[in-house]
Amino acid sequence: MTRVLTIAVDVMGGDSGGDFVVPGVELALLRQPETKVLLFGDAQVIKQRLEGNPRVTAASKIFHCDVMVAMDEKPSRALRRGRRVSSMWQCLEAVRDGEADFAISAGNTGALMAMARFVLKTMSRIDRPAMAALWPTVKGESIVLDVGASIGADARQLVDFAVMGAAMANSISGLRRPKVGLLNIGVEEVKGLEEVREAGRILRASDLPLDYHGFVEGDDVGQGVVDVVVTEGFSGNIALKTAEGTANQIATWLRAAMRRSIWSRIGFLMASSAFKVLRQKMDPRRSNGGVLLGLNGIVIKSHGGTDAQGFAAAIDLGIDMARNNLVARIAADMEKFEGAEHAPKPNNSDGTVVLKAANS
Amino acid sequence: MTRVLTIAVDVMGGDSGGDFVVPGVELALLRQPETKVLLFGDAQVIKQRLEGNPRVTAASKIFHCDVMVAMDEKPSRALRRGRRVSSMWQCLEAVRDGEADFAISAGNTGALMAMARFVLKTMSRIDRPAMAALWPTVKGESIVLDVGASIGADARQLVDFAVMGAAMANSISGLRRPKVGLLNIGVEEVKGLEEVREAGRILRASDLPLDYHGFVEGDDVGQGVVDVVVTEGFSGNIALKTAEGTANQIATWLRAAMRRSIWSRIGFLMASSAFKVLRQKMDPRRSNGGVLLGLNGIVIKSHGGTDAQGFAAAIDLGIDMARNNLVARIAADMEKFEGAEHAPKPNNSDGTVVLKAANS
Repeated sequence: MTRVLTIAVDVMGGDSGGDFVVPGVELALLRQPETKVLLFGDAQVIKQRLEGNPRVTAASKIFHCDVMVAMDEKPSRALRRGRRVSSMWQCLEAVRDGEADFAISAGNTGALMAMARFVLKTMSRIDRPAMAALWPTVKGESIVLDVGASIGADARQLVDFAVMGAAMANSISGLRRPKVGLLNIGVEEVKGLEEVREAGRILRASDLPLDYHGFVEGDDVGQGVVDVVVTEGFSGNIALKTAEGTANQIATWLRAAMRRSIWSRIGFLMASSAFKVLRQKMDPRRSNGGVLLGLNGIVIKSHGGTDAQGFAAAIDLGIDMARNNLVARIAADMEKFEGAEHAPKPNNSDGTVVLKAANS
Repeated sequence: MTRVLTIAVDVMGGDSGGDFVVPGVELALLRQPETKVLLFGDAQVIKQRLEGNPRVTAASKIFHCDVMVAMDEKPSRALRRGRRVSSMWQCLEAVRDGEADFAISAGNTGALMAMARFVLKTMSRIDRPAMAALWPTVKGESIVLDVGASIGADARQLVDFAVMGAAMANSISGLRRPKVGLLNIGVEEVKGLEEVREAGRILRASDLPLDYHGFVEGDDVGQGVVDVVVTEGFSGNIALKTAEGTANQIATWLRAAMRRSIWSRIGFLMASSAFKVLRQKMDPRRSNGGVLLGLNGIVIKSHGGTDAQGFAAAIDLGIDMARNNLVARIAADMEKFEGAEHAPKPNNSDGTVVLKAANS
């Protein structure tokens, strides 16, 4: 029997005041009817939104919060103003106190990261949390991290990201040894950052539950060359947003092509079912939801501008992570890694071990 | 009357031994019949390729070179082996000696950058050359630099990139004050790299022939929010390749959709002329050709895996740059910038000038 999960939901986060949150919860409940839901936010607003929605009403408890974090609020200010009393903070506390299996918010990303670090704390062996995103590929989907939780990363932090990303791939797809690549640039002259190369050396020498593939370039991500793409947050965020922007751009061109003539209209109409498949593949809602990794608890960040379907997809992601004990899995893998670091396998032609300092 | 231009062409560079080079030159000559061409490479191979091609034969002179740089050769080795004697080196020398208006090669990128720095030297006020790429957008095309000439950049180098990119935009599109944005990430908590913010402050305070827009994110590039996107080479290379990869990925999906059923085949056939426009927009050959900026001469890098049409597009780009005196323009703009740095316009509410050190 599958365990009944409880979700802590920040009802107030999102571009339009989060009006897609309750409908999104409803869609998720259709797929996972046993789930319990804790709703955090302005009680009056929540009650209004629950009207005529018996399914969510029956599955949920309301927790009134006086303060809502604004979408454009500076994280430092949100922390001061929203500490203990905001819907965002309180849904994180529910995870910390074991009342919920994961928290989900479509609110202010920076504030959510800052509050999550405060409330849940970083896992003992993890230096920095990372934000992981699902990236649709021609083969299915891959995980990319960090997509902007922090800027820059040394070799050891990149290795942590690899371990966490592999644990997430395992939780989602059941892959025992996910293929992991380090994002790098291929220009011979420069050959990439020293910390990326050093991370590659550590990953190659370690005996982790992952299959280290080597470097990947920007165009390998969408080809699904690896299951997990590891990079620091600046380039990861730029890569993710560039891919989203390119997909939007091509969608714009495609719509213009469809409207071009009466023949193109009829033609696209005839091809509409094939077209629907394409649209689904390109649908950004499918891969909505970033996961904050490296904390003592699961936190899902939904896009602020999503809709009910997108929010439900982000909940599904959280359910997968919680069912598969993501946090415990990362902790166990990190321990293996620490072990591996102390007793690495030989990587030299004469059978000796050459392992550079991890914290270079 | 337009000036007759002379092009120095590395005939040997490219994935398939550069067999698209001569046909590409022919296409370019159809558009610019007055152009003179210097062909560098193995004389026997060149003569073979010129057979049955009177147009290129009439416009060109052959310069035999004994050494060809291999596509996968390390730049350091290419420099040692190919110095003075390789086709790549010699076409750069033709630019240095004023015999050609620009050099073009589809060969090894790292080797080309290394040799170009050696032969042409960096412009007096420029710290580091950058590689600029054309990026198709929904509005037309933008310039993105650096896409991988080097890794990392301090504030002053980013400002140099902005000046060079603006001069290139001016050369291509005649824009007097191109809109320039700095690529950054939008997560509030981290707010981007300090050097990017510092570059923003310098650009805002300076009186350069460009319109500084502020920060842009990855998804703004394809929307054509600015004419010139400035970033350091690691993230620029990743952004460019990610966009190319996403376009390929969607093209794969689109082809699969077209083949899905008999109806979709007929439908896409009916819409084929609209589809052709879309295909043209997505055609990577349209924006083939990176420009090495910041050297005392114009060097165009074509994709190694392009074809005749793509190579001709890269030649067109070089012709635009040469016609509009790109190098002199950058030099003049840099001088204005140095001037602006010494006598900047007031940027404080009380009319005084607050300008941080450029080399922070």
